[in-house]
Amino acid sequence: MLLESLREEVLRANQEIARRGLAPHTFGNASGVDRSSDKPLVVIKPSGVDYAALTAADLVVTDLDGNIVEGALRPSSDLDTHTLLYREFPQIGGIVHTHSEFATAWAQACRAIPCFGTTHADYFHGPVPVTDPLTAEEVASDYVGNTGAVIVRCFRSAKLDPVAVPGVLVAGHAPFTWGKNPAEAVEHADVLEYIARLAFRSVVLGAPDDGIPSHVSEYHHLRKHGPKATYGQR
Amino acid sequence: MLLESLREEVLRANQEIARRGLAPHTFGNASGVDRSSDKPLVVIKPSGVDYAALTAADLVVTDLDGNIVEGALRPSSDLDTHTLLYREFPQIGGIVHTHSEFATAWAQACRAIPCFGTTHADYFHGPVPVTDPLTAEEVASDYVGNTGAVIVRCFRSAKLDPVAVPGVLVAGHAPFTWGKNPAEAVEHADVLEYIARLAFRSVVLGAPDDGIPSHVSEYHHLRKHGPKATYGQR
Amino acid sequence: MLLESLREEVLRANQEIARRGLAPHTFGNASGVDRSSDKPLVVIKPSGVDYAALTAADLVVTDLDGNIVEGALRPSSDLDTHTLLYREFPQIGGIVHTHSEFATAWAQACRAIPCFGTTHADYFHGPVPVTDPLTAEEVASDYVGNTGAVIVRCFRSAKLDPVAVPGVLVAGHAPFTWGKNPAEAVEHADVLEYIARLAFRSVVLGAPDDGIPSHVSEYHHLRKHGPKATYGQR
Amino acid sequence: MLLESLREEVLRANQEIARRGLAPHTFGNASGVDRSSDKPLVVIKPSGVDYAALTAADLVVTDLDGNIVEGALRPSSDLDTHTLLYREFPQIGGIVHTHSEFATAWAQACRAIPCFGTTHADYFHGPVPVTDPLTAEEVASDYVGNTGAVIVRCFRSAKLDPVAVPGVLVAGHAPFTWGKNPAEAVEHADVLEYIARLAFRSVVLGAPDDGIPSHVSEYHHLRKHGPKATYGQR
Repeated sequence: MLLESLREEVLRANQEIARRGLAPHTFGNASGVDRSSDKPLVVIKPSGVDYAALTAADLVVTDLDGNIVEGALRPSSDLDTHTLLYREFPQIGGIVHTHSEFATAWAQACRAIPCFGTTHADYFHGPVPVTDPLTAEEVASDYVGNTGAVIVRCFRSAKLDPVAVPGVLVAGHAPFTWGKNPAEAVEHADVLEYIARLAFRSVVLGAPDDGIPSHVSEYHHLRKHGPKATYGQR
Repeated sequence: MLLESLREEVLRANQEIARRGLAPHTFGNASGVDRSSDKPLVVIKPSGVDYAALTAADLVVTDLDGNIVEGALRPSSDLDTHTLLYREFPQIGGIVHTHSEFATAWAQACRAIPCFGTTHADYFHGPVPVTDPLTAEEVASDYVGNTGAVIVRCFRSAKLDPVAVPGVLVAGHAPFTWGKNPAEAVEHADVLEYIARLAFRSVVLGAPDDGIPSHVSEYHHLRKHGPKATYGQR
Repeated sequence: MLLESLREEVLRANQEIARRGLAPHTFGNASGVDRSSDKPLVVIKPSGVDYAALTAADLVVTDLDGNIVEGALRPSSDLDTHTLLYREFPQIGGIVHTHSEFATAWAQACRAIPCFGTTHADYFHGPVPVTDPLTAEEVASDYVGNTGAVIVRCFRSAKLDPVAVPGVLVAGHAPFTWGKNPAEAVEHADVLEYIARLAFRSVVLGAPDDGIPSHVSEYHHLRKHGPKATYGQR
Repeated sequence: MLLESLREEVLRANQEIARRGLAPHTFGNASGVDRSSDKPLVVIKPSGVDYAALTAADLVVTDLDGNIVEGALRPSSDLDTHTLLYREFPQIGGIVHTHSEFATAWAQACRAIPCFGTTHADYFHGPVPVTDPLTAEEVASDYVGNTGAVIVRCFRSAKLDPVAVPGVLVAGHAPFTWGKNPAEAVEHADVLEYIARLAFRSVVLGAPDDGIPSHVSEYHHLRKHGPKATYGQR
């Protein structure tokens, strides 16, 4: 069985999605990529399988174009979104898609999440962006691939760095997050849900649409992520 | 004891209502129908019995007109709603009634739930409909039967297919869902609650009243339910 | 030790307050009354004791004027509200005071809870009433006794029956509920919280201020509580 | 190892933050101070360590100026806020910082929490104050120290007593609470979250911006905290 340790990481990330309540039923999925060879391999959840029943052997291995390399089950129906993101964002090693309650509500309202506080600034540099809705043509021609395409377009047009902004809301759908590996991707999915929840209530309480002043959000982001980071044990 | 396996399915569906927190106290009920003979039989929860104490033997068996065939306890006070739906919607094999928190809030506000995203579109084709309120005459003459009647009227007048739209909100009351069997009916009750929760927050965040463009919702519904479905292991 | 069985009932009702999450920390209290003799006795939680540590022996016994008959600890600081309600509402046998999340929010907003649906109608005949705020004089002269007095005034002036309306919101404070015994009082506290939660969300979704038409709420209340009740096993 | 008993208290307070769900991931921290000698010592959580893995030996000991006296790990990145508060508020013995869901939403909306009811009045004398946002200069020169400085300025300018008002919302950030020891500080963090939750819903239901009349809030605060307190077992 190829890629044993990556399979274990992807299995754990999928289990974390369920354990943290980020996706009820079989909604949601996690994947990881091994870029150590010329032909990178993606490990992803199979489609429509319960989290509780999932094993490492059930996971599906594909190449970066989504061709199945190993696995008896059909891969997640969102596979082509994952592979496109791995091709376009070479810095990332894991992707998580959830339907978590508050992040999905923002996605369904087609609104980016402004940075209202330091909880947000510690993880996301600026607002959590929202994509354009898919057009009728994009849906008809290649829905799943074009979901990846609108994410990439969103980042390119706003000149966003996928390392500093480790996730996005797909309009009318739900969030995707990523990280250097599957474990970090699922941590970002969990933090994004928390940020979305705080921001929902801040909006109801009348927080200004443009969030906190940028000098605070810049400071907080850089104290965790910049070259002069002072947070944690380093 | 008649219908042992259906009793077990109906028992489990009732227990799922409690386990998933869809109806506190003794609110809510699940039933199933066996259509294999000329005289279909309905198995339903008895009235006012705690979910924790419920056994398969407590369940009540009736014919499609609600006449008791077997059972020492009184059937759910909502029996006549269930039997009417079984008579009018021959495709369905299980019905669940809950007072789940967000779906009931929409029912109490007498609002249909617009389709705001793919979580919704995967399960319900178009909005989750809401019935007309019962008139004073309908309440006085036959409250429970007329609850079924307003549901059927809602589906007939809007030409809705109960397979594609597996549930409804009864105005000023709460949701009813159904499926091909009791297990699917309770899954739909749980998903409806999730959809209602997401939609509540989307509305607060300013989502447009008419939901997402139909090309997205059509696509998503058909990828799970149409003849060309691509979701899950088939 | 006097009143052993009532002590057990009051202990269980206090434990239920904690188990159902109706009052964090030492907020809230339950009591019961034994009216079997000429000199009725009240059993009530001591003040400021953790629910987890509470034993039947810790409970305090008083007469209907609040004079301590048995008990080493100080009674709940809300004692005089309880005793006044027992004197004025002779039909009731148990009282529960909580700071549950949604019912307290309505009390703090000084709003009665309209009847928006059948969940409400099954337990409360008409809106859940809210008292007047206490005046400065009422606070200064006898805060706890006057909390009982504003409740009684609210019921007398609106000609409400405390059996049909088993609870109230004290403006700027929190709910009190009651029942024929301590167990029913705590069930009503739990149902009131559920009703308050549903109603909060219904209001946000635009439910009309006057609730559902009275023909529905009357019907539902009477099917559980009238002489022709059809709900449950009787 | 210095200060063994204070270490245990600080460890338990940090574990309570996690157990009560007041700060997900490694957000939040608790500290305590020993003022028994001429050179008071502060015990504080290390930076970025999971609550589940934390031991008493991991805690960091500093003097009141934040100089490390004992400990192999880096102290919480919020250390300079804690030490400034210990220097300026000599009555306090423990400090807790969380990112709890509703208190943080109020902080992000830059709104003080009005006193809407007796739950609030029992713990906080008057509104829970909110600081000014930090200026660009304050962020650039000494972000963490200036977080403490805006808290102190908020209390000095409004003539607030840190014993009667045991916490604050830092604008665009999150709450800090304190008490006579770490256990009381974490209890106040938990109560503040409850107050913030009740107040959020009261605001949505239309509670007036200035809260309940002061004669009620004064009475309630003094019955728990004044020289004539009547609450609890004393």
